[in-house]
Amino acid sequence: MTFINDDFLLKNETARRLYHRYAEKLPIIDYHCHIPPRDIAEDKRFSDISEIWLGGDHYKWRLIRMTGAPESEITGGCDPKTKFRRFAEALPLAIGNPMYHWTHLELKRYFDCDLILKPSTADEIFEICNKKLAEPQMSAKGIIERSNVKMIGTTDDPVDNLEYHEKIAADENFKTLVLPSFRPDRAVSIDKPDFADYIELLGKASGEDVSSVDGVKRALSARLEYFCKHGCRAADHGLDRAVYSPAEDGEVEEIFEKAMNKKPITREEAEKYMTAILLHCGREYSRLGVVMQIHYNCQRRVNSRYTAMLGADTGFDCIRTDNGGEAVAGLLNALDKDGLLPKTVLYSLNPADNELLDAIAGSFPGEGGIQKVQHGAAWWFNDTKSGMEAQLKSFANLSLLGGFIGMLTDSRSLLSYTRHEYFRRIFCNLLGEWVEAGEYPNDEEALKEIVEGVCYKNAAKFFGIG
Amino acid sequence: MTFINDDFLLKNETARRLYHRYAEKLPIIDYHCHIPPRDIAEDKRFSDISEIWLGGDHYKWRLIRMTGAPESEITGGCDPKTKFRRFAEALPLAIGNPMYHWTHLELKRYFDCDLILKPSTADEIFEICNKKLAEPQMSAKGIIERSNVKMIGTTDDPVDNLEYHEKIAADENFKTLVLPSFRPDRAVSIDKPDFADYIELLGKASGEDVSSVDGVKRALSARLEYFCKHGCRAADHGLDRAVYSPAEDGEVEEIFEKAMNKKPITREEAEKYMTAILLHCGREYSRLGVVMQIHYNCQRRVNSRYTAMLGADTGFDCIRTDNGGEAVAGLLNALDKDGLLPKTVLYSLNPADNELLDAIAGSFPGEGGIQKVQHGAAWWFNDTKSGMEAQLKSFANLSLLGGFIGMLTDSRSLLSYTRHEYFRRIFCNLLGEWVEAGEYPNDEEALKEIVEGVCYKNAAKFFGIG
Amino acid sequence: MTFINDDFLLKNETARRLYHRYAEKLPIIDYHCHIPPRDIAEDKRFSDISEIWLGGDHYKWRLIRMTGAPESEITGGCDPKTKFRRFAEALPLAIGNPMYHWTHLELKRYFDCDLILKPSTADEIFEICNKKLAEPQMSAKGIIERSNVKMIGTTDDPVDNLEYHEKIAADENFKTLVLPSFRPDRAVSIDKPDFADYIELLGKASGEDVSSVDGVKRALSARLEYFCKHGCRAADHGLDRAVYSPAEDGEVEEIFEKAMNKKPITREEAEKYMTAILLHCGREYSRLGVVMQIHYNCQRRVNSRYTAMLGADTGFDCIRTDNGGEAVAGLLNALDKDGLLPKTVLYSLNPADNELLDAIAGSFPGEGGIQKVQHGAAWWFNDTKSGMEAQLKSFANLSLLGGFIGMLTDSRSLLSYTRHEYFRRIFCNLLGEWVEAGEYPNDEEALKEIVEGVCYKNAAKFFGIG
Repeated sequence: MTFINDDFLLKNETARRLYHRYAEKLPIIDYHCHIPPRDIAEDKRFSDISEIWLGGDHYKWRLIRMTGAPESEITGGCDPKTKFRRFAEALPLAIGNPMYHWTHLELKRYFDCDLILKPSTADEIFEICNKKLAEPQMSAKGIIERSNVKMIGTTDDPVDNLEYHEKIAADENFKTLVLPSFRPDRAVSIDKPDFADYIELLGKASGEDVSSVDGVKRALSARLEYFCKHGCRAADHGLDRAVYSPAEDGEVEEIFEKAMNKKPITREEAEKYMTAILLHCGREYSRLGVVMQIHYNCQRRVNSRYTAMLGADTGFDCIRTDNGGEAVAGLLNALDKDGLLPKTVLYSLNPADNELLDAIAGSFPGEGGIQKVQHGAAWWFNDTKSGMEAQLKSFANLSLLGGFIGMLTDSRSLLSYTRHEYFRRIFCNLLGEWVEAGEYPNDEEALKEIVEGVCYKNAAKFFGIG
Repeated sequence: MTFINDDFLLKNETARRLYHRYAEKLPIIDYHCHIPPRDIAEDKRFSDISEIWLGGDHYKWRLIRMTGAPESEITGGCDPKTKFRRFAEALPLAIGNPMYHWTHLELKRYFDCDLILKPSTADEIFEICNKKLAEPQMSAKGIIERSNVKMIGTTDDPVDNLEYHEKIAADENFKTLVLPSFRPDRAVSIDKPDFADYIELLGKASGEDVSSVDGVKRALSARLEYFCKHGCRAADHGLDRAVYSPAEDGEVEEIFEKAMNKKPITREEAEKYMTAILLHCGREYSRLGVVMQIHYNCQRRVNSRYTAMLGADTGFDCIRTDNGGEAVAGLLNALDKDGLLPKTVLYSLNPADNELLDAIAGSFPGEGGIQKVQHGAAWWFNDTKSGMEAQLKSFANLSLLGGFIGMLTDSRSLLSYTRHEYFRRIFCNLLGEWVEAGEYPNDEEALKEIVEGVCYKNAAKFFGIG
Repeated sequence: MTFINDDFLLKNETARRLYHRYAEKLPIIDYHCHIPPRDIAEDKRFSDISEIWLGGDHYKWRLIRMTGAPESEITGGCDPKTKFRRFAEALPLAIGNPMYHWTHLELKRYFDCDLILKPSTADEIFEICNKKLAEPQMSAKGIIERSNVKMIGTTDDPVDNLEYHEKIAADENFKTLVLPSFRPDRAVSIDKPDFADYIELLGKASGEDVSSVDGVKRALSARLEYFCKHGCRAADHGLDRAVYSPAEDGEVEEIFEKAMNKKPITREEAEKYMTAILLHCGREYSRLGVVMQIHYNCQRRVNSRYTAMLGADTGFDCIRTDNGGEAVAGLLNALDKDGLLPKTVLYSLNPADNELLDAIAGSFPGEGGIQKVQHGAAWWFNDTKSGMEAQLKSFANLSLLGGFIGMLTDSRSLLSYTRHEYFRRIFCNLLGEWVEAGEYPNDEEALKEIVEGVCYKNAAKFFGIG
């Protein structure tokens, strides 16, 4: 039997039935990813497996670095085959790591390859994959189509003119919806050195006078409306720490002016400005029917030597364990008390926050929709088999698991759609375990509704697709 | 086979043997619940299943709200049948949620009903339950008696005159002990707006002059003694945050005066007063042989819109993840160093605190009694199958599980005694897993002692019952 | 079948094969323990099982105390047999506690005893063990040799003259390497009352003028070099809290002077001095090829009554849950940015920090070696079956488990080498579970490399042994 076989991760009869009967064939709503829209618009092709696999994936870089391989053979100018070999050397040691599973799922689904990647098979697999990548259907659009993706939510800066989204939409032969997501982190991050410069960009993109906080708000609203015209269904805020420090408008204005004049501001001041902008954005998402995602508890760029060398998002971020629950609840409440809380998805990078997020989510119900606020899929360092199971169990314990909007790839790679398959297998396996342990009735209709809901229908409804 | 069958949750032979041979028939010591003593004293009857099930249970309200149902059909003035239907719509989506199990255990044990609750069975179950509720034995006392409850510890304010406890005690035909528990939260919560008014009530109830902190302490002591005359065995402190900020008497007095004059006090000041009262109470519990319970890490009423509408305890509280370990240890130590630490049970709403609490508990032994300080049963949002298993494993890893005082309902509903059955099944299943995996010998005598201890005898001894 | 049998904890075929074929026979690298080197040098013998088992083991003391036994029969002057009986009374209640397993593994491996310890067997086991202890091979060296220990890393103060290490090294008949580990906690702990006195000792031991911070640094370097001449491969810092508060040299000097003059210093000041010394040590470890261990999140001596009676390290420490991730990452980065980060092993006493530590470790790779920074084995209160599984899964999820340096005893007892067996069984069982669930291929070569690596070879390489 091959490693990736029909019943991979499906350890009981019910799991196998639920997966193969319901989950397997459902389209994918990938509501949060980091695929560059340009790659899709230009229907990018890849010269070799190292380019598509190792070209931008900081998960793989981290893993290879842990072997002690030289950086030149990871992100450096070295030849693709050597880079691939370095990855093949790391992988056999990665027992229990999701990378082991992702890798072989991708080899199987996109390259029809059943070999196990290790030093002795690296060269053969390198050739197999490269040959496959040369086939006509292995372009960006081809990969997306064969992956049965109904919708892709990209991650876009408010100043983006969305030209690539327009170009993709104009291609009538390409059926997948590729919709922008509004990610105004740079307009929120008043504590970053490039803040003032960014605000100018935002002013230009929006045509608004951004010399005041109100102006920034108007500019963000204008850009959000522009995004919505391009089908935007979701926004995202990536925060190092959850913040909720309400302040008077005048005080926020003064803080903003200091920052625009590149004067130092304190962390407390930064959080007051951030809160003001987050509240404005939240109200606008509510008005425009956009889902608000909040990602927090991240320590970014902890390794300054490598960051100086390679820049951001290169594998040197880690978990933060700050106590952000009060801020998250405070922020949601500030929106909710005026009836302006949008649909919201909460993610913390600290796995110890699972139950906290579910408890908060359950405190902000919304009439007319299931799980209006919800705990998002296991994120980043938690996007592992056990991390997903922990998130699912916490969700189930405290909320209505049947209302969960399910998986996203959060990936920079076009080959990551198998992460939906990975999730669906793990999800069906968990349901099957419960059923076979007598913890839920073997009620086909109820189970079908849950599987189809979590794997597809809930997200479709939540994001207003189809 | 019915969903709730003899072997529900008992997945191995040893578990089934231990449960059916020892655990099943033991009486219940429900040392911490929120049943109104008046309901028992007046032998309350219920007009329909919605009243007894949905009338006061914020767990169920939260679950139904998450479907997006209108509040009018949850806590509002809508008819009982519609409310029941809303619950029936939520339940099938609650796979993995303890509510799914509690519901069907209660249907089985109290209504002899094996149907699975879902929209298509809702009306039939509504009728079955209502018919049953009309039977003579389905009064408050009847339900308690058929549940084999030996002792109930209610939750009572120090100003309560305990008239209902007296009335219950006077009924010679009713054998269950219904004992008051001392919960002086309102005398501790100096930061709440109604503090000064409450202190006046306390003065009246106790006949003490409460114009000073010493007076408040005397008043609390007087009321505690009154409670003890009515059989009180336990006290409880519900704290948003664990506190331990010792201060000079004079400073505490000044803080108290400010609060009594309705002047604002800082959080630091509040914690100094709280600490003084907690220490006083702890010493008095020690003197009078009362068990001290501490519940902390709660964020209460995070949703101000719903709280304004429905008041406290309506399903809008959530977990807090503050670092309270130092305060808990400091408080216990301050009592222990004078030899005045009472028996204590520690509960945090943050499941990540499990090991912390067991480690603290093990640092305060008491000669002459097993597990004098202990980590309490999985609380509230953690009162789930996996939450209980986590608490039990943490307890076992760091303490003597055989000395655990076991389960409580913490419930507002008379139908919640099945939570003891739920716990016992989960507990026996865990023991059985260990035995069958060869991690503990299949020693019938030792296992019997553990099962009987944790399910009944330890609590009986700890609380001095029978 | 006996309780401790060949397949203890090995619940699947693959686990049994991996354990018996590869793990079982490997020598032990016990790179972190608390065995007094004098006991080895003098080839200590034990008069009875209570002396060797109960004489210095605060884990056992805690467990016995939780039964309510009087302290006189635990650490007091009572006869050995009574003490042993107290332990035998506690043990049957310790279901699920690692002590239950450790105890029976030690009875089996060192005393060839298959009896289950409980009150009814206590006297017989007491006799069996004492008889065995009288045999010639049951001396310190004999026990170490029969345990197949290749290297022991003791825990030593910088002022130690290492005379016992020299004496051990001079015994040509004793093959086990017994190497000092550098633990300069007392030179770091500027907030402890005996700091100034200790610094004087350090001055004497090193021959350096320690009237300045630079002098302290020179003294530490001198002692570290002395340790390295005696084979030192590892250093260890035990911190209540992780600290990283960089400050100017002048400020640190002033703080140091205050402390040397026994004037009070603030916590912030203490952390600045600590940071300066930690950074100096880290750089020196890097220069001299010494592994840096950091243990943090400990609340020590929380029970002041017992501590006054029995002193430190007697079973009254517990977990701390401070948020130390930022400090840990900051400290490593400060060393790494100058290329002076040594090999590092991170341990937090808070189990909720598992993923945090793995995420930090993966952010500080080192060219030329696998897992240069790593998350250490489950520590102290987490050194349990489920705690080890959690640490292993976290390591696997976020790092290369195949590069883990594995287990240490961290023990004061010569009978604790069976903890390596315990770990190996649990580790092989986990690998076997993954393989049999189809989550890793049944690739004998890859699995052999992982098992041998984690159980022996990785530590040998990391610490430069053989």
